[in-house]
Amino acid sequence: MKENKYDEEIFFEKYSQMDRSKKGLSGAGEWRQFQKFMPDFRGKRVLDLGCGYGWHCRYAAENGAASVLGTDISQKMLRRAEEMSVGTGIRYRRKAMEDLEFPDESFDIVLSSLAFHYVRDFFRLLEKINSWLVPEGKLVFSVEHPVFTAYGNQDWYRDEQGNILHFPVDRYFFEGKRDAVFLGEKVIKYHRTLTTYLNGLLQSGFSLEQVVEPQPPEEMLDLPGMEDELRRPMMLLISAVKRK
Amino acid sequence: MKENKYDEEIFFEKYSQMDRSKKGLSGAGEWRQFQKFMPDFRGKRVLDLGCGYGWHCRYAAENGAASVLGTDISQKMLRRAEEMSVGTGIRYRRKAMEDLEFPDESFDIVLSSLAFHYVRDFFRLLEKINSWLVPEGKLVFSVEHPVFTAYGNQDWYRDEQGNILHFPVDRYFFEGKRDAVFLGEKVIKYHRTLTTYLNGLLQSGFSLEQVVEPQPPEEMLDLPGMEDELRRPMMLLISAVKRK
Repeated sequence: MKENKYDEEIFFEKYSQMDRSKKGLSGAGEWRQFQKFMPDFRGKRVLDLGCGYGWHCRYAAENGAASVLGTDISQKMLRRAEEMSVGTGIRYRRKAMEDLEFPDESFDIVLSSLAFHYVRDFFRLLEKINSWLVPEGKLVFSVEHPVFTAYGNQDWYRDEQGNILHFPVDRYFFEGKRDAVFLGEKVIKYHRTLTTYLNGLLQSGFSLEQVVEPQPPEEMLDLPGMEDELRRPMMLLISAVKRK
Repeated sequence: MKENKYDEEIFFEKYSQMDRSKKGLSGAGEWRQFQKFMPDFRGKRVLDLGCGYGWHCRYAAENGAASVLGTDISQKMLRRAEEMSVGTGIRYRRKAMEDLEFPDESFDIVLSSLAFHYVRDFFRLLEKINSWLVPEGKLVFSVEHPVFTAYGNQDWYRDEQGNILHFPVDRYFFEGKRDAVFLGEKVIKYHRTLTTYLNGLLQSGFSLEQVVEPQPPEEMLDLPGMEDELRRPMMLLISAVKRK
Protein backbone atom coordinates (compact mmCIF):
# COMPACT_ATOMS: atom_id res chain seq x y z
CA MET A 1 0.00 0.00 0.00
CA LYS A 2 2.41 2.62 -1.23
CA GLU A 3 -0.28 5.24 -1.74
CA ASN A 4 -0.93 6.50 1.76
CA LYS A 5 -4.54 7.49 1.22
CA TYR A 6 -5.58 6.80 4.79
CA ASP A 7 -3.38 9.60 6.09
CA GLU A 8 -5.20 12.20 3.99
CA GLU A 9 -7.41 14.24 6.30
CA ILE A 10 -10.71 14.06 4.39
CA PHE A 11 -10.41 10.40 3.43
CA PHE A 12 -9.47 9.36 6.94
CA GLU A 13 -12.38 11.34 8.37
CA LYS A 14 -14.83 9.64 6.03
CA TYR A 15 -13.34 6.21 6.67
CA SER A 16 -13.55 6.71 10.40
CA GLN A 17 -17.32 7.25 10.04
CA MET A 18 -17.90 3.85 8.45
CA ASP A 19 -19.59 1.18 10.51
CA ARG A 20 -16.53 -1.05 10.24
CA SER A 21 -14.46 1.75 11.78
CA LYS A 22 -16.86 2.66 14.56
CA LYS A 23 -18.18 -0.77 15.48
CA GLY A 24 -15.17 -2.84 14.52
CA LEU A 25 -15.51 -6.40 13.34
CA SER A 26 -19.23 -6.62 14.07
CA GLY A 27 -19.78 -3.61 11.80
CA ALA A 28 -18.17 -5.36 8.83
CA GLY A 29 -20.65 -7.27 6.67
CA GLU A 30 -18.15 -10.00 5.87
CA TRP A 31 -17.01 -10.65 9.44
CA ARG A 32 -19.67 -13.27 10.12
CA GLN A 33 -18.09 -15.45 7.45
CA PHE A 34 -14.52 -14.31 7.87
CA GLN A 35 -14.68 -15.18 11.57
CA LYS A 36 -15.21 -18.83 10.60
CA PHE A 37 -11.85 -18.69 8.80
CA MET A 38 -10.02 -17.57 11.91
CA PRO A 39 -7.64 -20.29 13.08
CA ASP A 40 -6.92 -21.29 16.64
CA PHE A 41 -4.72 -18.43 17.85
CA ARG A 42 -3.65 -19.97 21.14
CA GLY A 43 0.10 -19.74 21.56
CA LYS A 44 0.58 -18.57 17.98
CA ARG A 45 2.72 -15.80 16.52
CA VAL A 46 0.45 -13.64 14.39
CA LEU A 47 1.18 -11.02 11.72
CA ASP A 48 -1.56 -8.75 10.38
CA LEU A 49 -0.70 -7.04 7.08
CA GLY A 50 -2.55 -3.77 6.59
CA CYS A 51 -3.96 -3.87 10.09
CA GLY A 52 -5.72 -0.48 10.05
CA TYR A 53 -7.30 0.13 13.45
CA GLY A 54 -6.03 -3.23 14.65
CA TRP A 55 -9.39 -4.96 15.07
CA HIS A 56 -8.08 -8.29 13.85
CA CYS A 57 -4.94 -7.91 15.94
CA ARG A 58 -7.02 -7.47 19.07
CA TYR A 59 -9.20 -10.40 18.08
CA ALA A 60 -6.10 -12.59 17.79
CA ALA A 61 -4.74 -11.30 21.11
CA GLU A 62 -8.06 -11.84 22.87
CA ASN A 63 -8.12 -15.38 21.54
CA GLY A 64 -4.82 -16.39 22.99
CA ALA A 65 -2.15 -15.44 20.46
CA ALA A 66 1.36 -15.53 21.95
CA SER A 67 2.38 -12.44 20.01
CA VAL A 68 0.71 -10.12 17.54
CA LEU A 69 2.31 -7.68 15.14
CA GLY A 70 0.16 -5.33 13.09
CA THR A 71 1.62 -3.40 10.16
CA ASP A 72 0.18 -0.57 8.15
CA ILE A 73 1.38 2.41 6.19
CA SER A 74 -1.01 4.90 7.75
CA GLN A 75 0.21 6.83 10.77
CA LYS A 76 -3.29 7.99 11.63
CA MET A 77 -4.66 4.46 11.64
CA LEU A 78 -1.81 3.06 13.68
CA ARG A 79 -2.15 5.84 16.24
CA ARG A 80 -5.81 4.92 16.67
CA ALA A 81 -4.88 1.24 16.76
CA GLU A 82 -2.37 1.85 19.54
CA GLU A 83 -4.85 3.89 21.56
CA MET A 84 -7.31 1.01 21.43
CA SER A 85 -4.69 -1.66 22.14
CA VAL A 86 -3.21 -0.37 25.39
CA GLY A 87 -2.34 -3.25 27.68
CA THR A 88 -2.78 -5.95 25.02
CA GLY A 89 0.89 -6.44 24.19
CA ILE A 90 0.17 -6.00 20.47
CA ARG A 91 2.99 -4.33 18.59
CA TYR A 92 2.42 -2.11 15.58
CA ARG A 93 4.88 -1.20 12.89
CA ARG A 94 4.52 1.48 10.25
CA LYS A 95 5.72 0.12 6.95
CA ALA A 96 4.34 -0.78 3.52
CA MET A 97 3.85 -4.55 3.54
CA GLU A 98 5.95 -4.88 0.38
CA ASP A 99 8.93 -3.52 2.30
CA LEU A 100 8.68 -5.73 5.38
CA GLU A 101 11.47 -8.17 6.10
CA PHE A 102 11.41 -11.02 8.62
CA PRO A 103 13.53 -14.11 9.18
CA ASP A 104 12.14 -17.38 7.77
CA GLU A 105 9.42 -19.06 9.82
CA SER A 106 8.79 -16.03 12.05
CA PHE A 107 5.02 -16.50 12.14
CA ASP A 108 2.40 -19.22 12.55
CA ILE A 109 -0.47 -17.15 11.15
CA VAL A 110 -0.58 -14.27 8.68
CA LEU A 111 -3.81 -12.28 8.45
CA SER A 112 -4.81 -9.54 6.07
CA SER A 113 -8.15 -7.83 5.70
CA LEU A 114 -8.94 -5.91 2.52
CA ALA A 115 -5.40 -4.74 1.92
CA PHE A 116 -3.83 -6.92 -0.81
CA HIS A 117 -5.68 -5.06 -3.57
CA TYR A 118 -3.49 -2.06 -2.74
CA VAL A 119 -0.37 -4.08 -3.49
CA ARG A 120 1.14 -4.00 -6.95
CA ASP A 121 3.17 -7.22 -6.93
CA PHE A 122 1.12 -10.02 -5.41
CA PHE A 123 3.50 -12.85 -6.34
CA ARG A 124 6.46 -11.21 -4.67
CA LEU A 125 4.37 -10.68 -1.56
CA LEU A 126 3.17 -14.31 -1.58
CA GLU A 127 6.73 -15.50 -1.82
CA LYS A 128 7.66 -13.41 1.22
CA ILE A 129 4.64 -14.51 3.25
CA ASN A 130 5.44 -18.11 2.44
CA SER A 131 8.96 -17.69 3.76
CA TRP A 132 7.76 -15.95 6.93
CA LEU A 133 5.35 -18.78 7.77
CA VAL A 134 6.22 -22.07 9.42
CA PRO A 135 5.26 -25.22 7.49
CA GLU A 136 1.51 -25.70 7.88
CA GLY A 137 1.24 -22.06 8.92
CA LYS A 138 -1.90 -20.26 7.82
CA LEU A 139 -2.54 -17.36 5.52
CA VAL A 140 -6.05 -16.02 5.98
CA PHE A 141 -7.10 -12.95 4.04
CA SER A 142 -9.89 -11.01 2.45
CA VAL A 143 -9.59 -9.00 -0.70
CA GLU A 144 -11.83 -7.13 -3.06
CA HIS A 145 -13.31 -9.52 -5.59
CA PRO A 146 -11.93 -9.47 -9.15
CA VAL A 147 -15.49 -8.84 -10.37
CA PHE A 148 -15.51 -5.72 -8.21
CA THR A 149 -12.07 -4.44 -9.24
CA ALA A 150 -12.02 -5.24 -12.98
CA TYR A 151 -13.92 -2.31 -14.48
CA GLY A 152 -12.24 0.29 -12.37
CA ASN A 153 -14.58 2.77 -10.73
CA GLN A 154 -16.30 0.11 -8.58
CA ASP A 155 -19.73 1.60 -9.16
CA TRP A 156 -23.01 0.21 -10.45
CA TYR A 157 -24.17 0.86 -13.97
CA ARG A 158 -27.31 2.98 -13.72
CA ASP A 159 -30.09 4.27 -15.93
CA GLU A 160 -30.77 7.98 -16.43
CA GLN A 161 -32.89 8.09 -13.29
CA GLY A 162 -30.02 6.69 -11.27
CA ASN A 163 -31.52 3.25 -10.79
CA ILE A 164 -29.10 0.35 -10.70
CA LEU A 165 -29.20 -1.74 -13.87
CA HIS A 166 -26.33 -4.13 -13.14
CA PHE A 167 -22.65 -4.20 -12.23
CA PRO A 168 -20.23 -3.74 -15.13
CA VAL A 169 -17.26 -6.02 -15.81
CA ASP A 170 -14.60 -5.03 -18.30
CA ARG A 171 -10.80 -5.26 -18.81
CA TYR A 172 -10.87 -8.41 -16.70
CA PHE A 173 -7.66 -9.92 -18.05
CA PHE A 174 -5.83 -6.59 -18.00
CA GLU A 175 -4.40 -6.65 -14.53
CA GLY A 176 -2.98 -3.61 -12.82
CA LYS A 177 -3.78 -0.18 -11.55
CA ARG A 178 -7.34 1.09 -11.30
CA ASP A 179 -8.63 4.49 -10.26
CA ALA A 180 -11.37 3.41 -7.92
CA VAL A 181 -13.80 5.69 -6.13
CA PHE A 182 -14.17 4.89 -2.44
CA LEU A 183 -16.08 7.17 -0.08
CA GLY A 184 -16.23 9.71 -2.88
CA GLU A 185 -12.44 9.90 -3.07
CA LYS A 186 -10.09 8.63 -5.76
CA VAL A 187 -8.06 5.66 -4.53
CA ILE A 188 -5.54 3.58 -6.44
CA LYS A 189 -6.21 -0.15 -6.32
CA TYR A 190 -4.80 -3.10 -8.23
CA HIS A 191 -7.06 -5.42 -10.14
CA ARG A 192 -5.99 -8.99 -10.55
CA THR A 193 -7.86 -12.04 -11.77
CA LEU A 194 -9.15 -14.87 -9.70
CA THR A 195 -6.56 -17.02 -11.43
CA THR A 196 -3.79 -14.83 -10.06
CA TYR A 197 -5.15 -15.01 -6.52
CA LEU A 198 -5.95 -18.71 -6.44
CA ASN A 199 -3.46 -20.26 -8.80
CA GLY A 200 -0.91 -17.82 -7.46
CA LEU A 201 -1.39 -19.32 -4.01
CA LEU A 202 -1.34 -22.89 -5.32
CA GLN A 203 1.87 -22.24 -7.22
CA SER A 204 3.52 -20.42 -4.32
CA GLY A 205 3.48 -23.39 -1.98
CA PHE A 206 0.04 -23.01 -0.43
CA SER A 207 -2.95 -25.34 -0.27
CA LEU A 208 -6.39 -23.80 -0.33
CA GLU A 209 -8.60 -24.57 2.63
CA GLN A 210 -11.55 -22.29 1.98
CA VAL A 211 -12.65 -19.84 -0.67
CA VAL A 212 -15.83 -17.90 0.05
CA GLU A 213 -17.55 -14.88 -1.43
CA PRO A 214 -19.31 -13.42 1.59
CA GLN A 215 -22.95 -12.39 1.47
CA PRO A 216 -24.37 -9.86 3.90
CA PRO A 217 -25.91 -11.55 6.93
CA GLU A 218 -29.70 -11.71 7.06
CA GLU A 219 -30.02 -9.08 9.79
CA MET A 220 -27.99 -6.55 7.80
CA LEU A 221 -30.13 -6.80 4.66
CA ASP A 222 -32.32 -3.91 5.81
CA LEU A 223 -29.37 -1.51 5.95
CA PRO A 224 -29.18 0.91 3.00
CA GLY A 225 -27.70 -0.69 -0.10
CA MET A 226 -27.16 -4.08 1.54
CA GLU A 227 -29.69 -5.94 -0.59
CA ASP A 228 -27.76 -4.86 -3.67
CA GLU A 229 -24.79 -6.75 -2.27
CA LEU A 230 -26.57 -9.90 -3.41
CA ARG A 231 -26.34 -8.71 -7.01
CA ARG A 232 -22.56 -8.96 -7.38
CA PRO A 233 -19.67 -10.33 -5.34
CA MET A 234 -17.62 -7.63 -3.66
CA MET A 235 -15.14 -9.63 -1.62
CA LEU A 236 -13.25 -12.86 -1.59
CA LEU A 237 -12.26 -14.60 1.65
CA ILE A 238 -9.43 -17.09 1.40
CA SER A 239 -7.90 -19.48 3.87
CA ALA A 240 -4.67 -21.15 2.78
CA VAL A 241 -2.02 -23.23 4.47
CA LYS A 242 1.69 -23.45 3.72
CA ARG A 243 2.43 -26.91 2.35
CA LYS A 244 4.93 -28.99 4.24
CA MET B 1 -28.17 -32.25 -18.48
CA LYS B 2 -31.84 -33.04 -18.37
CA GLU B 3 -32.73 -30.59 -21.13
CA ASN B 4 -31.68 -32.40 -24.25
CA LYS B 5 -31.00 -29.32 -26.34
CA TYR B 6 -28.29 -30.95 -28.40
CA ASP B 7 -30.76 -33.35 -29.97
CA GLU B 8 -32.84 -30.50 -31.40
CA GLU B 9 -32.18 -30.33 -35.13
CA ILE B 10 -31.45 -26.61 -35.51
CA PHE B 11 -29.34 -26.33 -32.36
CA PHE B 12 -27.32 -29.40 -33.22
CA GLU B 13 -26.75 -28.13 -36.74
CA LYS B 14 -25.48 -24.80 -35.44
CA TYR B 15 -23.32 -26.46 -32.80
CA SER B 16 -21.79 -28.79 -35.35
CA GLN B 17 -20.62 -25.73 -37.32
CA MET B 18 -18.61 -24.34 -34.42
CA ASP B 19 -14.83 -24.56 -34.60
CA ARG B 20 -14.74 -26.72 -31.49
CA SER B 21 -17.03 -29.20 -33.27
CA LYS B 22 -15.25 -29.24 -36.59
CA LYS B 23 -11.66 -29.00 -35.45
CA GLY B 24 -12.01 -30.67 -32.08
CA LEU B 25 -9.76 -29.76 -29.20
CA SER B 26 -7.52 -27.49 -31.25
CA GLY B 27 -10.58 -25.46 -32.23
CA ALA B 28 -11.46 -24.73 -28.62
CA GLY B 29 -9.92 -21.52 -27.30
CA GLU B 30 -9.45 -22.93 -23.82
CA TRP B 31 -7.77 -26.19 -24.86
CA ARG B 32 -4.26 -24.76 -24.77
CA GLN B 33 -4.66 -24.22 -21.05
CA PHE B 34 -6.99 -27.15 -20.33
CA GLN B 35 -4.49 -29.52 -21.91
CA LYS B 36 -2.01 -28.60 -19.18
CA PHE B 37 -4.53 -29.87 -16.63
CA MET B 38 -4.72 -33.29 -18.28
CA PRO B 39 -3.26 -35.93 -15.99
CA ASP B 40 -1.13 -38.88 -16.99
CA PHE B 41 -3.71 -41.23 -18.53
CA ARG B 42 -1.45 -44.28 -18.86
CA GLY B 43 -3.19 -47.33 -17.46
CA LYS B 44 -6.00 -45.25 -15.97
CA ARG B 45 -9.76 -45.78 -15.99
CA VAL B 46 -11.33 -42.60 -17.30
CA LEU B 47 -14.90 -41.27 -17.18
CA ASP B 48 -15.95 -38.24 -19.25
CA LEU B 49 -19.20 -36.61 -18.12
CA GLY B 50 -21.00 -34.80 -20.92
CA CYS B 51 -18.59 -36.09 -23.52
CA GLY B 52 -20.30 -34.63 -26.61
CA TYR B 53 -18.37 -35.69 -29.69
CA GLY B 54 -15.91 -37.57 -27.51
CA TRP B 55 -12.86 -35.42 -28.22
CA HIS B 56 -11.57 -35.68 -24.66
CA CYS B 57 -12.31 -39.40 -24.60
CA ARG B 58 -10.15 -39.93 -27.66
CA TYR B 59 -7.43 -37.75 -26.18
CA ALA B 60 -7.41 -39.95 -23.07
CA ALA B 61 -7.40 -43.13 -25.17
CA GLU B 62 -4.59 -41.85 -27.39
CA ASN B 63 -2.58 -41.05 -24.30
CA GLY B 64 -2.68 -44.53 -22.89
CA ALA B 65 -5.86 -44.78 -20.80
CA ALA B 66 -6.70 -48.38 -19.89
CA SER B 67 -10.42 -47.73 -20.38
CA VAL B 68 -12.54 -44.75 -21.33
CA LEU B 69 -16.26 -44.26 -20.82
CA GLY B 70 -17.99 -41.20 -22.26
CA THR B 71 -21.50 -40.27 -21.20
CA ASP B 72 -23.91 -37.75 -22.63
CA ILE B 73 -27.62 -37.21 -22.94
CA SER B 74 -27.60 -36.40 -26.65
CA GLN B 75 -28.13 -39.25 -29.06
CA LYS B 76 -26.94 -37.19 -32.01
CA MET B 77 -23.71 -36.32 -30.30
CA LEU B 78 -23.02 -39.85 -29.15
CA ARG B 79 -23.68 -41.18 -32.65
CA ARG B 80 -21.05 -38.78 -34.01
CA ALA B 81 -18.73 -39.69 -31.15
CA GLU B 82 -19.04 -43.38 -31.93
CA GLU B 83 -18.40 -42.82 -35.63
CA MET B 84 -15.20 -41.01 -34.81
CA SER B 85 -14.09 -43.52 -32.18
CA VAL B 86 -14.15 -46.75 -34.17
CA GLY B 87 -11.32 -49.04 -33.11
CA THR B 88 -10.41 -47.03 -30.02
CA GLY B 89 -12.17 -49.22 -27.47
CA ILE B 90 -13.93 -46.18 -26.00
CA ARG B 91 -17.39 -46.96 -24.71
CA TYR B 92 -20.23 -44.46 -24.75
CA ARG B 93 -23.35 -44.43 -22.65
CA ARG B 94 -26.43 -42.28 -23.11
CA LYS B 95 -27.57 -41.03 -19.75
CA ALA B 96 -27.91 -37.73 -17.87
CA MET B 97 -24.88 -37.53 -15.57
CA GLU B 98 -27.14 -36.99 -12.55
CA ASP B 99 -28.61 -40.45 -13.14
CA LEU B 100 -25.38 -42.39 -13.52
CA GLU B 101 -24.53 -45.05 -10.95
CA PHE B 102 -21.17 -46.78 -10.52
CA PRO B 103 -19.59 -48.83 -7.75
CA ASP B 104 -17.21 -46.97 -5.43
CA GLU B 105 -13.70 -46.37 -6.77
CA SER B 106 -14.57 -47.29 -10.37
CA PHE B 107 -12.42 -44.56 -11.91
CA ASP B 108 -8.99 -42.99 -11.58
CA ILE B 109 -9.85 -39.86 -13.55
CA VAL B 110 -13.12 -38.02 -14.12
CA LEU B 111 -13.20 -35.40 -16.87
CA SER B 112 -15.90 -32.98 -17.84
CA SER B 113 -15.80 -30.19 -20.39
CA LEU B 114 -18.38 -27.39 -20.24
CA ALA B 115 -21.20 -29.59 -18.99
CA PHE B 116 -21.62 -29.03 -15.22
CA HIS B 117 -23.47 -25.73 -15.76
CA TYR B 118 -26.32 -27.79 -17.19
CA VAL B 119 -26.66 -29.69 -13.92
CA ARG B 120 -29.09 -28.49 -11.29
CA ASP B 121 -27.63 -30.12 -8.17
CA PHE B 122 -23.85 -29.73 -8.14
CA PHE B 123 -23.31 -30.96 -4.57
CA ARG B 124 -25.13 -34.22 -5.20
CA LEU B 125 -23.03 -34.73 -8.32
CA LEU B 126 -19.80 -33.96 -6.47
CA GLU B 127 -20.68 -36.49 -3.83
CA LYS B 128 -21.20 -39.12 -6.51
CA ILE B 129 -18.01 -38.27 -8.37
CA ASN B 130 -16.09 -38.45 -5.12
CA SER B 131 -17.42 -41.94 -4.47
CA TRP B 132 -16.62 -43.10 -8.00
CA LEU B 133 -13.00 -41.98 -7.74
CA VAL B 134 -10.17 -43.84 -6.07
CA PRO B 135 -8.31 -41.97 -3.32
CA GLU B 136 -6.01 -39.43 -5.01
CA GLY B 137 -8.10 -39.81 -8.16
CA LYS B 138 -8.47 -36.67 -10.25
CA LEU B 139 -11.44 -34.56 -11.20
CA VAL B 140 -10.57 -32.21 -14.06
CA PHE B 141 -13.29 -30.03 -15.50
CA SER B 142 -14.20 -26.82 -17.25
CA VAL B 143 -17.35 -24.89 -16.65
CA GLU B 144 -18.80 -21.57 -17.66
CA HIS B 145 -17.56 -18.86 -15.32
CA PRO B 146 -19.95 -17.51 -12.67
CA VAL B 147 -19.37 -14.02 -14.10
CA PHE B 148 -20.63 -15.35 -17.41
CA THR B 149 -23.69 -17.18 -16.04
CA ALA B 150 -24.90 -14.74 -13.36
CA TYR B 151 -26.90 -12.22 -15.36
CA GLY B 152 -28.62 -14.77 -17.51
CA ASN B 153 -28.57 -14.05 -21.21
CA GLN B 154 -24.78 -14.29 -21.49
CA ASP B 155 -24.56 -11.31 -23.79
CA TRP B 156 -22.61 -8.08 -23.71
CA TYR B 157 -24.26 -4.83 -22.69
CA ARG B 158 -24.24 -2.59 -25.76
CA ASP B 159 -24.96 1.00 -26.71
CA GLU B 160 -27.63 1.96 -29.25
CA GLN B 161 -25.21 1.45 -32.12
CA GLY B 162 -24.53 -2.08 -30.95
CA ASN B 163 -21.05 -1.39 -29.63
CA ILE B 164 -20.00 -3.35 -26.58
CA LEU B 165 -19.93 -1.24 -23.42
CA HIS B 166 -19.13 -3.93 -20.87
CA PHE B 167 -20.36 -7.28 -19.57
CA PRO B 168 -23.23 -7.13 -17.07
CA VAL B 169 -23.25 -8.98 -13.74
CA ASP B 170 -26.42 -9.26 -11.70
CA ARG B 171 -28.26 -11.73 -9.42
CA TYR B 172 -24.88 -13.21 -8.56
CA PHE B 173 -25.90 -14.75 -5.24
CA PHE B 174 -29.20 -16.02 -6.61
CA GLU B 175 -28.16 -19.41 -7.87
CA GLY B 176 -30.27 -21.51 -10.18
CA LYS B 177 -31.83 -21.64 -13.60
CA ARG B 178 -30.98 -19.11 -16.28
CA ASP B 179 -32.41 -18.73 -19.77
CA ALA B 180 -29.20 -18.30 -21.69
CA VAL B 181 -28.88 -17.61 -25.40
CA PHE B 182 -26.34 -19.81 -27.16
CA LEU B 183 -26.02 -19.90 -30.94
CA GLY B 184 -29.19 -17.84 -31.12
CA GLU B 185 -31.18 -20.52 -29.32
CA LYS B 186 -32.61 -20.50 -25.82
CA VAL B 187 -30.78 -22.93 -23.56
CA ILE B 188 -31.32 -23.60 -19.87
CA LYS B 189 -28.20 -23.31 -17.75
CA TYR B 190 -27.60 -23.19 -14.02
CA HIS B 191 -25.73 -20.33 -12.46
CA ARG B 192 -23.76 -20.96 -9.33
CA THR B 193 -21.22 -18.88 -7.50
CA LEU B 194 -17.52 -19.41 -7.40
CA THR B 195 -17.95 -20.24 -3.73
CA THR B 196 -20.22 -23.13 -4.64
CA TYR B 197 -17.76 -24.49 -7.18
CA LEU B 198 -14.59 -24.09 -5.13
CA ASN B 199 -15.73 -24.40 -1.56
CA GLY B 200 -18.10 -27.12 -2.73
CA LEU B 201 -15.11 -29.11 -3.92
CA LEU B 202 -13.11 -28.41 -0.76
CA GLN B 203 -16.02 -29.50 1.41
CA SER B 204 -16.73 -32.59 -0.67
CA GLY B 205 -13.40 -34.24 -0.03
CA PHE B 206 -11.32 -32.70 -2.80
CA SER B 207 -8.13 -30.67 -2.76
CA LEU B 208 -7.69 -28.01 -5.40
CA GLU B 209 -4.66 -28.37 -7.64
CA GLN B 210 -5.28 -25.67 -10.21
CA VAL B 211 -7.87 -22.98 -10.88
CA VAL B 212 -7.48 -21.05 -14.11
CA GLU B 213 -9.61 -18.67 -16.12
CA PRO B 214 -8.43 -19.32 -19.65
CA GLN B 215 -7.54 -16.51 -22.01
CA PRO B 216 -7.61 -16.98 -25.77
CA PRO B 217 -4.18 -17.91 -27.10
CA GLU B 218 -2.23 -15.18 -28.89
CA GLU B 219 -2.72 -16.68 -32.35
CA MET B 220 -6.50 -16.77 -31.95
CA LEU B 221 -6.83 -13.08 -31.02
CA ASP B 222 -7.39 -12.12 -34.66
CA LEU B 223 -10.48 -14.32 -34.93
CA PRO B 224 -13.79 -12.41 -34.79
CA GLY B 225 -14.79 -11.51 -31.24
CA MET B 226 -11.75 -13.12 -29.65
CA GLU B 227 -10.19 -9.89 -28.41
CA ASP B 228 -13.37 -9.22 -26.45
CA GLU B 229 -12.69 -12.44 -24.55
CA LEU B 230 -10.05 -10.47 -22.66
CA ARG B 231 -12.78 -8.20 -21.30
CA ARG B 232 -14.51 -10.75 -19.11
CA PRO B 233 -13.89 -14.32 -17.97
CA MET B 234 -16.04 -16.89 -19.74
CA MET B 235 -14.73 -20.16 -18.36
CA LEU B 236 -13.19 -21.68 -15.32
CA LEU B 237 -10.80 -24.64 -15.51
CA ILE B 238 -10.39 -26.67 -12.36
CA SER B 239 -8.16 -29.55 -11.41
CA ALA B 240 -8.95 -31.28 -8.14
CA VAL B 241 -7.85 -34.44 -6.42
CA LYS B 242 -9.77 -36.71 -4.08
CA ARG B 243 -8.22 -36.45 -0.62
CA LYS B 244 -6.92 -39.65 0.91
